[in-house]
Amino acid sequence: MVFEDMLPIGASLASMGVAAGVAAWVGRQQSGTEGMMKISSAVRTGAMAFLRREFKIVIPVAIALAIIIGFASSFSNGVAFAVGASLSGIAGLISLRITVKAAVRAAQATSKGLGPAFATAFRGGATVGLSVPAMALIAITALYFVYPDPLMIAGVGIGASLIALFIRAGGGIFTKAADLGADLVGKVEAGIPEDDPRNPATIADNVGDNVGDAAGMGSDVYESYIVTILAAMLLGALIAPGSLEAIGGDRFGPALLPIVGIEVNPMVLYPMLIGASGLIASIIGAMTITSRKISDPMNPLNIAFIVSAAIAIGLNFLFTTSFLGYNILSYSLFATTVVGVILVPVIQRITDYFTNSKYKPVQEIADSTKWGYAANTLTGIVVGMRSTGPFMLAIVIVLGVSYGITYGVTQDPLMGIYGTAMAAMAMLSLAGIVLCIDAFGPISDNAGGIVEMTGMGEENRTITDKIDAAGNTTKAITKGFAIASAGLAALAIIQAFQLEADRIFPAMMFEYSLSDVRLIIGLLVGGLIPFFVTSQLIAGVSRSASKMVDEVRRQFKEKPGIMAGTETPDYAKCVDIATTASLRELWKPALVTIAAPIVIGVLLGPTAVAGVLMGAVVSGLFLAYHLANSGGAWDNAKKYIEMQGKKKTEAHAIAVVGDLIGDPYKDTAGPALNTVIKLLNTIAIVFVPVFIAILPL
Amino acid sequence: MVFEDMLPIGASLASMGVAAGVAAWVGRQQSGTEGMMKISSAVRTGAMAFLRREFKIVIPVAIALAIIIGFASSFSNGVAFAVGASLSGIAGLISLRITVKAAVRAAQATSKGLGPAFATAFRGGATVGLSVPAMALIAITALYFVYPDPLMIAGVGIGASLIALFIRAGGGIFTKAADLGADLVGKVEAGIPEDDPRNPATIADNVGDNVGDAAGMGSDVYESYIVTILAAMLLGALIAPGSLEAIGGDRFGPALLPIVGIEVNPMVLYPMLIGASGLIASIIGAMTITSRKISDPMNPLNIAFIVSAAIAIGLNFLFTTSFLGYNILSYSLFATTVVGVILVPVIQRITDYFTNSKYKPVQEIADSTKWGYAANTLTGIVVGMRSTGPFMLAIVIVLGVSYGITYGVTQDPLMGIYGTAMAAMAMLSLAGIVLCIDAFGPISDNAGGIVEMTGMGEENRTITDKIDAAGNTTKAITKGFAIASAGLAALAIIQAFQLEADRIFPAMMFEYSLSDVRLIIGLLVGGLIPFFVTSQLIAGVSRSASKMVDEVRRQFKEKPGIMAGTETPDYAKCVDIATTASLRELWKPALVTIAAPIVIGVLLGPTAVAGVLMGAVVSGLFLAYHLANSGGAWDNAKKYIEMQGKKKTEAHAIAVVGDLIGDPYKDTAGPALNTVIKLLNTIAIVFVPVFIAILPL
Repeated sequence: MVFEDMLPIGASLASMGVAAGVAAWVGRQQSGTEGMMKISSAVRTGAMAFLRREFKIVIPVAIALAIIIGFASSFSNGVAFAVGASLSGIAGLISLRITVKAAVRAAQATSKGLGPAFATAFRGGATVGLSVPAMALIAITALYFVYPDPLMIAGVGIGASLIALFIRAGGGIFTKAADLGADLVGKVEAGIPEDDPRNPATIADNVGDNVGDAAGMGSDVYESYIVTILAAMLLGALIAPGSLEAIGGDRFGPALLPIVGIEVNPMVLYPMLIGASGLIASIIGAMTITSRKISDPMNPLNIAFIVSAAIAIGLNFLFTTSFLGYNILSYSLFATTVVGVILVPVIQRITDYFTNSKYKPVQEIADSTKWGYAANTLTGIVVGMRSTGPFMLAIVIVLGVSYGITYGVTQDPLMGIYGTAMAAMAMLSLAGIVLCIDAFGPISDNAGGIVEMTGMGEENRTITDKIDAAGNTTKAITKGFAIASAGLAALAIIQAFQLEADRIFPAMMFEYSLSDVRLIIGLLVGGLIPFFVTSQLIAGVSRSASKMVDEVRRQFKEKPGIMAGTETPDYAKCVDIATTASLRELWKPALVTIAAPIVIGVLLGPTAVAGVLMGAVVSGLFLAYHLANSGGAWDNAKKYIEMQGKKKTEAHAIAVVGDLIGDPYKDTAGPALNTVIKLLNTIAIVFVPVFIAILPL
Repeated sequence: MVFEDMLPIGASLASMGVAAGVAAWVGRQQSGTEGMMKISSAVRTGAMAFLRREFKIVIPVAIALAIIIGFASSFSNGVAFAVGASLSGIAGLISLRITVKAAVRAAQATSKGLGPAFATAFRGGATVGLSVPAMALIAITALYFVYPDPLMIAGVGIGASLIALFIRAGGGIFTKAADLGADLVGKVEAGIPEDDPRNPATIADNVGDNVGDAAGMGSDVYESYIVTILAAMLLGALIAPGSLEAIGGDRFGPALLPIVGIEVNPMVLYPMLIGASGLIASIIGAMTITSRKISDPMNPLNIAFIVSAAIAIGLNFLFTTSFLGYNILSYSLFATTVVGVILVPVIQRITDYFTNSKYKPVQEIADSTKWGYAANTLTGIVVGMRSTGPFMLAIVIVLGVSYGITYGVTQDPLMGIYGTAMAAMAMLSLAGIVLCIDAFGPISDNAGGIVEMTGMGEENRTITDKIDAAGNTTKAITKGFAIASAGLAALAIIQAFQLEADRIFPAMMFEYSLSDVRLIIGLLVGGLIPFFVTSQLIAGVSRSASKMVDEVRRQFKEKPGIMAGTETPDYAKCVDIATTASLRELWKPALVTIAAPIVIGVLLGPTAVAGVLMGAVVSGLFLAYHLANSGGAWDNAKKYIEMQGKKKTEAHAIAVVGDLIGDPYKDTAGPALNTVIKLLNTIAIVFVPVFIAILPL
């Protein structure tokens, strides 16, 4: 091929073009009645208010960080940071805007049937799904062509991570504070149904769905994508091209990119090609979803994923062999990408088993309600913890196999590690279709809210409920994908971190050995961070929710007309409270995450930092997956009881408590850990030079 | 000194002698009325039935393991394993017998006042506290004098760990199954008070207190003691005596022990001397508790501890300088022991802060009941997770400081690591007094039960309640001690493991580096084990409790005379059910713990095993401390609400649920993790030769 350098950019542009196309299609759909638009615009205003307030704090922080990074590391890293942060912010903005827009149209489309409503929601989600990874890939590619050294642009990862933390974790606090506030006073005390427009927190609740679920997941995956491709490129850059020519031939020598005109190490360009392959596969997969008649939205979604995965494997083979030739080394690299692609459905199946009411674990939780509150809580915790077993074994097998393949062919440990990074990259390359499948969930959730609030008919609600149920399933399994990809991304970066420290300071001869007390201290401190963040965020949700409860109570009391329907509640105030609270709760975890690797690095050097990164992965991955699945399983156990028509029983009341406990688990703390793990890593790798410059030992 | 070799054995014998003396004193106390003796004998019979059934399974397993270890490792290790296991079993037996005996006498002594009742309970506990570490020290010393190579006797650690797992984790399941069964049917359904003799599960409940709390904690600490001293000796043996003479003089050369007649490395003998110092200090501290009049049992307990700690520091200085001379090296070693001694009260204070109702965390949990079940659950989880922060920082500081001191003096990393092991040893040397302070808790709990069941007066119950309250506090803080010591013991063994693998197979040049994918796989697999064990054990408690509930319901139904008081319930059947259930739930976690290091070692070699050990420490320490403190804090939040006289309120009902959730946390899963972490380590170090013999790579 002669167009390797344009392939990633071309695929990104194509993906963005398709995203713009489906966005335009969504915009052309009927926008609904005036009442619906009123609600939609309130949600949009609320969502934008949240983002505006967040950005007001984040932008100064980001500018300061850009300057610090520019001086402490390199100018290019400062620029990269700004690019990463800006694109992440833009991704959040796009996600919010399109999901709000699509929700009202999907609500309207319910009058035309399940197929059209589902297609509207899906295409709204596809705008996010197709544009987010495309932005990540184009940012990395363009930066690399300007500064052809991956370490010089690693700041892009910090930018992505910082914004992701604010959107993902901030959104997570926001959404649960609003949700709890709406439920505790509205549903429980005032006895009005969910999404009732008389509830002052209802708009905040809907804003929260958009902020936490749509924008949050988008920025989480954007960040994983950036971090993974960076790690693969960093590792690739360390592989001397000459060392591979004996096995793979001259395709593995330095290559001059014809269009950009720079010389690259093929191992650095290869991850971008796999990224391009996944993007193209995602576009085609997303195209299989149309407005045709369907009975269960899960079927077309499954087909869309299978199509994408199959095409990705085919394109991976095509791109690999045409770029690297037909030889055992390129086959081995292709094999690692197949391993990565296969991991996606495997993780999805594992997550589905532990969180779907079709299987035993959730049914056991539902069944345990007969023993009371404590048994229900404990069973949910047990299910979440147990789920970490198969999850981790799957990751361990992928690591071992992908390492074994490339190491076996080259006998070079560095190539083995590069193989694991490529498996991670192949997994992430499917982010496009995975996000498409995920992002329609919050849209249909909101559509359901609009149907409810505007008093549309029962059959419209049935349609949104059906889409929503599929959305809940995909939401749970996407969390598994996000956690696994965060873990693999982090593991790859940890390797890159060690090798970079060695490369920059060959005289120091760092050892990252378990017999070094600094590594052990690092591991313990790193292991602590996820527990600290989790406790802070769960406590933060409680504090924020109690503020929200006070506000909703106040409004009901001071404006008696609200309940009678003669007065409009002050929605904006509730949005404001949730926003302020989420920002206040966020600074401590954010500060600890940013400061920990730097402080430990300055005090104890890179060995300890590597320990911190690894410790955070070890405790963080388990905790994140446990939190996500316990939460998902409680939620579905409650729904399972409802499906059996036991909505007014004591069992249901007990299951509701389980769901309440699970809410901050699955929607706040769990997702935030992904971001924390990756932010630690990107900070560490960009600040490598600083640790050693200051290091007294 | 010329009697160094006799000092550890002499101190052990003295400690056992004092233990026998206080046991005899307890035996001489008035044994109570016939009714009291009847209950006491039922509890004793139940406890013995539990042990007999356990031993019936454990002894064949142990014999098989002894043979396997004897062949796979060495004959001496087989012997050592048998010694470790037998002594652990004997420790459990002694604990059970004396606590049952002391409980009935303490109940009787309540008629004489708080002082005598407290002294009886304390001295019953002191029998356990003084004999358990003495047995550990004498076993290690005697074995070492016969086989003067620490690696040849490391099997003693497996023996200790295996039995500890069965008593600690098995007891943990037993006690909570019995407790829940008694509560759910007796208190809630039948409406009879706690410890009512009409409740068929009440004897099992009392047996459970003895099994889980007294015998379990004893075997846990026995195990930590053995593992820590082993680790210090293993590390000491690797330090070439010649390398230290330049700094410390000829006191650091090989020394001929005059009485035993063998030549030792002083660094191997030194940990035993520190053990002896702690034992002597514990005896003196325990002696300060008498039958005199007191108002709050916490005061004499605090004094006893302070006396012991001060004497330990003094004796450490004396023994260190007289054995190793007055030089900077011996001062530095002494300093590490001071660090270890100081860690004990620090950990106790941290644990106390998070679990005592005097402080904010527990009060917040109590306060959160106003928001309902979910808030109470979440707040308890938050408190437990947050507590891991200061706890881990304390451990990290101890590691860093003790390493820094000895490394700073010698510039030898191995001496640095030896310093951390000595800090751990100094901490464990206080196990005697710590156990004394802990073990009276279950005795007074049982005494309270006897007072209740025999219908003694209100003032007797007030006395046992007062002692019981102090016992609850010390029980919580001892858990912190046990977890911290397990962590430090494991960290020391991990170092010893790596160095031993290198020493046995110098040609293999193992690296325990984070850039090795095997280490990473090991870390992830190791990190998984605590989550797996926790989920298994909590699920096991639920399953066992439901069986107990069925049985109690059946008895109430089939024997209507029980409630009328005309028929005696079948206590033995309930004990039997709890015993069988606990054994059934135990085999899976036990098998995984024993098999994991061996399987990983055979497949991936020592590098991966080191990862498994470290991964289990990283996730296990946090999880164990979180589980212990969340559980303790919920328990005390409930008591706090009761103290405010709100026993019949909704807040109390909510707090009771928190306590129920916390029960398996703090009394089953949390403590079991200690044992699991140590068992993994001892298995690994004894099986080192096997991994490499089979290893294909």
